[in-house]
Amino acid sequence: MEQNPKSEIRNPKSKQSAIPGTHEVGAQSAITQMNQAKQGIITPEVELLARAEHCSPEGLSAKVASGKVAIPFNIKHRPTQPCAIGEGLKTKVNANLGTSPEIGTLEGELEKAKVALGARADTLMDLSIGGDTVQIRRAIIDASPVPVGTVPIYEAALKAGDITQMTPKGILETIRFQAEDGVDFMTIHAGITLQAAARLSAGNRIMEVVSRGGAILLKWMRHHKAENPLYAHFDEVLDILAQYDVTISLGDGLRPGCLADASDGAQFQELITLGELTRRAWARDISVIIEGPGHMPMDQIEANVLLQKRICGSAPFYVLGPLVTDVAPGYDHITAAIGGAIAARAGADFLCYVTPGEHLHLPTPEDVRDGVIASGIAAHAGDIAKGIPGAMDWDIQMSRCRSNLDWEGQIKWSINPEKTKTYCERRLSAEDEVCTMCGEYCALKVGREDRKGGI
Amino acid sequence: MEQNPKSEIRNPKSKQSAIPGTHEVGAQSAITQMNQAKQGIITPEVELLARAEHCSPEGLSAKVASGKVAIPFNIKHRPTQPCAIGEGLKTKVNANLGTSPEIGTLEGELEKAKVALGARADTLMDLSIGGDTVQIRRAIIDASPVPVGTVPIYEAALKAGDITQMTPKGILETIRFQAEDGVDFMTIHAGITLQAAARLSAGNRIMEVVSRGGAILLKWMRHHKAENPLYAHFDEVLDILAQYDVTISLGDGLRPGCLADASDGAQFQELITLGELTRRAWARDISVIIEGPGHMPMDQIEANVLLQKRICGSAPFYVLGPLVTDVAPGYDHITAAIGGAIAARAGADFLCYVTPGEHLHLPTPEDVRDGVIASGIAAHAGDIAKGIPGAMDWDIQMSRCRSNLDWEGQIKWSINPEKTKTYCERRLSAEDEVCTMCGEYCALKVGREDRKGGI
Repeated sequence: MEQNPKSEIRNPKSKQSAIPGTHEVGAQSAITQMNQAKQGIITPEVELLARAEHCSPEGLSAKVASGKVAIPFNIKHRPTQPCAIGEGLKTKVNANLGTSPEIGTLEGELEKAKVALGARADTLMDLSIGGDTVQIRRAIIDASPVPVGTVPIYEAALKAGDITQMTPKGILETIRFQAEDGVDFMTIHAGITLQAAARLSAGNRIMEVVSRGGAILLKWMRHHKAENPLYAHFDEVLDILAQYDVTISLGDGLRPGCLADASDGAQFQELITLGELTRRAWARDISVIIEGPGHMPMDQIEANVLLQKRICGSAPFYVLGPLVTDVAPGYDHITAAIGGAIAARAGADFLCYVTPGEHLHLPTPEDVRDGVIASGIAAHAGDIAKGIPGAMDWDIQMSRCRSNLDWEGQIKWSINPEKTKTYCERRLSAEDEVCTMCGEYCALKVGREDRKGGI
Repeated sequence: MEQNPKSEIRNPKSKQSAIPGTHEVGAQSAITQMNQAKQGIITPEVELLARAEHCSPEGLSAKVASGKVAIPFNIKHRPTQPCAIGEGLKTKVNANLGTSPEIGTLEGELEKAKVALGARADTLMDLSIGGDTVQIRRAIIDASPVPVGTVPIYEAALKAGDITQMTPKGILETIRFQAEDGVDFMTIHAGITLQAAARLSAGNRIMEVVSRGGAILLKWMRHHKAENPLYAHFDEVLDILAQYDVTISLGDGLRPGCLADASDGAQFQELITLGELTRRAWARDISVIIEGPGHMPMDQIEANVLLQKRICGSAPFYVLGPLVTDVAPGYDHITAAIGGAIAARAGADFLCYVTPGEHLHLPTPEDVRDGVIASGIAAHAGDIAKGIPGAMDWDIQMSRCRSNLDWEGQIKWSINPEKTKTYCERRLSAEDEVCTMCGEYCALKVGREDRKGGI
């Protein structure tokens, strides 16, 4: 049992490639994780990650080759704690960082990154849209041992000054610029096509678009009466990503923003397109992740995961929540943990955290911690339920410590040892082995005395 | 749509009984809610609660008659905000209060009761085992507009001084004493029989017993080599409860205390007995609630709800969590919200809250608030998924306000308006209609400008 499997892979030997020259950058010359897997080459990353995931390198490599698993690993970043995302693996957790036009500083974002990593986020996304976004992104990538993701359309819009002034050329340049910076995975909202927009207009949503990237692209498309440039120029996007081995995270620009809008025609119209784009990316040996809802009643989650897996050829599924009610601002880490756990159990592979501040403000470091931990609980609960090898061992360790009233052990095996320690110190009876909940009527203590009596 | 259905029933006319003399106390003479329902009498409580639940009084009364719904309503308390618990109704939330031997005061417990009610707990349980438990119980009942529950075996043990010194007579006297105080529902651990204890001994649990009541009874049984007095004297227990219309909440003394122990032979041995006791209580016109786990992997929850409903004739199911992982002390309101939502969706009717302090300390008022709200989220998410009439309306109201960037409306429809208001005040840009999360890149704002453009 390992509480933090990352400890095994802190110093991967991936800087030395198995194939001389494979990590050289150049048009069509770089060999991606997927390309190598298709050739039957076990990369150093696969080797290390297989160990952390209790599976064979050959099995993991086969899944990378088939697209069922993605390893975001830009050769310009080479995260020292990479992760594998997909079928049969531990469910991963992403933490969103980033400034808004109104608040956020480089130091603040680095602090949030530190907090997120301390709470065991598997990846970070920098969604900055305020301040010096280039400097912030580079600093986060430099500081991050885990894969870093971005949404390049934000920077493209910022650079253009006005959303409608963006150009396809400018968007592609931004993608290349960010790939060169070492971004390991990028959200590309290429599925919000004119066809999907028409479906949206024909529908009756309460909240039309809640995806920032989706709203930017839809505004551009409607203004220019033109196809989504990320869709129209998808092959050129893939050209760039292939050169750096950037994993493409196909964004859900039309994800539902409230329960009433979930699972409608517009959402699935976009998903169908994402399925087609998935195969185009795979044909270029680029790993794919599919982004998903959002807000959704509990009873629709399983069907959504199933449909995503079917339509997108079992590509890894990355859900934002889903939030199972709209009425709990201030507690959306909890609404998302409920939905995330159900999604993970149903087969979702990657949970984007939601913080208590969602819908209300840019998250604080405390929000970041609460968000990562809530999603971590959801991921772990899902992993136990879907039988991920080793997942249950952690709970057994904790339960043994509980049974023995071993408080040090309980602190050690806690998802947040520091918090458990603080609670224990504040509340434990100094002279006793029980906590203040039950005192001498502690069921475990009563039971133990009972057994000691030999009866 | 009503955000708080209780507002409708704040002043029920239940003090005037429909049948003169039906609420007189006296052996075998009191007419319980169930007895009246069986006679086809619509009680004032059924009348009022049917309105709050969007169902017909006749339909609700029929469910009370069949045992599928319980209305805890001790005629000595007559809660002014009663609630109906069971099939087809909104999932209810209970908040546990009560002192421990080490901490807790009357004032402190009343403060926690106030916080729990403010967060919309449907019932309170007083689990005090420290200080003047009689005074504390009476003060909570006096102060509580909602039904109040207790676990009388605690006080029986306290009175006896030593667990092994309890007598059947003393236990029955305690039950009568608490019924006379107006307790609306009582946890009676009558299912932890010698047979169940044998099954437990034959098993290989990590944590034998984690129920305080269960541990007390098992210690007594093993010491005296005698049957559980609550089981042996069950008819006498029913005699007392019938006189006051106390709902019996059949306790799960052998509920699993960790994931590894869930759904074992001992747990189901007890459940089978609870099914038999349910029918014996119903034969005496006493409403029954069945208590359930506890700690449990997500994938076992639905089966547990199904089995409880089958074995116990569709009696209301009252779950403690279930907690879907053991590793998150300090966050067990979240682990319980995940399990509670899944249980509610599967048919559980009543969620006992779990606070962030569970496993570590007696809850603080802040823990109580967080616990009630987390369980409230779970209950509501479950209600949406199982199609409880009216449940989704609340989310639609909130979503419309979100779509319109109507912050006052969002505060109003929040599960905790005060918290939303605080977040908004702290973080909203004074000059703008958007929050600090996205600023001018707010998807809703971008979308609205887009549509204003008429394109």
